[in-house]
Amino acid sequence: MTWIYFLDLFGTSVFAISGVLMAIEKRFDLVGTLIIGFVTAVGGGTLRDLLIGRSPVGWLNDRNYILAIFIGYAIAYIFYKRVLRLKKGMFLFDTLGIGVFTIIGLKIAAEYNLRVETCIMMGVISACFGGVIRDVLTNEIPLIFRKEIYAAACFLGAVIYVIMQKFCPIENVNVMVSMAIVFIVRYLSFKNGWTLNLKKFDDVNGFGNGDK
Amino acid sequence: MTWIYFLDLFGTSVFAISGVLMAIEKRFDLVGTLIIGFVTAVGGGTLRDLLIGRSPVGWLNDRNYILAIFIGYAIAYIFYKRVLRLKKGMFLFDTLGIGVFTIIGLKIAAEYNLRVETCIMMGVISACFGGVIRDVLTNEIPLIFRKEIYAAACFLGAVIYVIMQKFCPIENVNVMVSMAIVFIVRYLSFKNGWTLNLKKFDDVNGFGNGDK
Amino acid sequence: MTWIYFLDLFGTSVFAISGVLMAIEKRFDLVGTLIIGFVTAVGGGTLRDLLIGRSPVGWLNDRNYILAIFIGYAIAYIFYKRVLRLKKGMFLFDTLGIGVFTIIGLKIAAEYNLRVETCIMMGVISACFGGVIRDVLTNEIPLIFRKEIYAAACFLGAVIYVIMQKFCPIENVNVMVSMAIVFIVRYLSFKNGWTLNLKKFDDVNGFGNGDK
Repeated sequence: MTWIYFLDLFGTSVFAISGVLMAIEKRFDLVGTLIIGFVTAVGGGTLRDLLIGRSPVGWLNDRNYILAIFIGYAIAYIFYKRVLRLKKGMFLFDTLGIGVFTIIGLKIAAEYNLRVETCIMMGVISACFGGVIRDVLTNEIPLIFRKEIYAAACFLGAVIYVIMQKFCPIENVNVMVSMAIVFIVRYLSFKNGWTLNLKKFDDVNGFGNGDK
Repeated sequence: MTWIYFLDLFGTSVFAISGVLMAIEKRFDLVGTLIIGFVTAVGGGTLRDLLIGRSPVGWLNDRNYILAIFIGYAIAYIFYKRVLRLKKGMFLFDTLGIGVFTIIGLKIAAEYNLRVETCIMMGVISACFGGVIRDVLTNEIPLIFRKEIYAAACFLGAVIYVIMQKFCPIENVNVMVSMAIVFIVRYLSFKNGWTLNLKKFDDVNGFGNGDK
Repeated sequence: MTWIYFLDLFGTSVFAISGVLMAIEKRFDLVGTLIIGFVTAVGGGTLRDLLIGRSPVGWLNDRNYILAIFIGYAIAYIFYKRVLRLKKGMFLFDTLGIGVFTIIGLKIAAEYNLRVETCIMMGVISACFGGVIRDVLTNEIPLIFRKEIYAAACFLGAVIYVIMQKFCPIENVNVMVSMAIVFIVRYLSFKNGWTLNLKKFDDVNGFGNGDK
């Protein structure tokens, strides 16, 4: 399936761009922004590979991923203001990216004969932990822990993919439908401000105490 | 030794509960609290497995650990206020947990033919680094770096275990005694406010400067 | 090449000292300072080993590295004030250290048949990510992302080493020249305040907004 490979490279570039943009905002230098772009793009897949024992970690052996990151890095710097203005486009690309990363991550884990629930987790980790590592390195509380539906969209897409595989023999259809699920759930939750916060805990002492 | 396996699962649940509680306090959502519960419970063992080259990482292959975490997650949410009130009980369970994690971590490392001092370190890492990763992900300075005797209790228990193995042929006794050492040292240090801070450095510029 | 092995141990001690000093300043206790010393010294090599699949991680099998760290730990505590006053010496030693770590890291990666650009990256990671992990654990934004030329000096040295290997058959010369490059670039950039910040982005919203 070449098309999913190309989507994966595309998602890698998009993730790199978003990482570099955030790092520029933090006034990191040329090296710092490159590292954050790298980590955002391949951090999730790297963690997955370490956990399942895929060695060496995937992107070390595939020059295209490194190239995709450098392209994203260059785009972020050269078209900085234009990219910033394209926030909506970036959001759509990013959302496409997490769908691809989820399904590819799940499929790679499946090659290692792990249980189905572990494969689903590895899909979610592939899609979400690049951003988590980026946030840790930039000294922020990871976004996905608090805002909107992000990991849950990946989780749902991964579950749908696993279920469809049992019933539908056309792999391309399974991949496309489950990626679409991730995209739609994430898009709708963002647009409608859906969250996974329980009201029950609204009066828990949070960061600011007074921000209730 | 089935009993230590069950204690391990019990400790995993307890660690998950404590992670989820902390994440709720930080107002993380349903996903964020689950991830923090997970990381707190299996983070130390995961780091140990990565370092010694145990692949895939242990909990990926054992459904019971994932189940134990979800039970802890459910308990934390359903009995939130009751668990909060049981602070003393949680502390005792947690202290039991780090004893179990230390000895199990040490024994797993020993299977990989590592030197004795490395095995001891792996025991300490198994018990302590789940909390460290939790603190990093929640943007806090890791607790064990500054407060009370925690890692040192694990270290002492691990050393006792190694020494006892040379003299006592009954494995169950060795495990129980060394786990008890961890428990007692941690309990006493907490109760009496023992620390490992050197007075010599009290006048070093710390966080607040004026907090001397 | 025994001399480079000894330099590596020396660099390990120096990195441990610098980590312990920073941890003391943060008022970490005896355990916390030891962990930070450890992580600063072997964190970069550990990450490299995990990424390339070297298992178990290098320092687990070599007692000398653990010894070197404990020597650094002892020096930092015993000669605390004297070491603090020797800031310039520490800087020179540290700069020597990153040169050694870069070239050794690159050579280890090369043994794993990775592409040349991957080996260069692994060299840079070996030298720089101990400090990154230290900064993450102490809740700081990693220094190398923002200040001075650090990773870039390692990168340049690694590239020079790879180029020289094609033309110069005397390995010792290649190692020494490329280490010297790292040293000189880092030293000059520090002395002259060279940075890799683009002026173009000076007006980007940074941390304080008003600090332009």
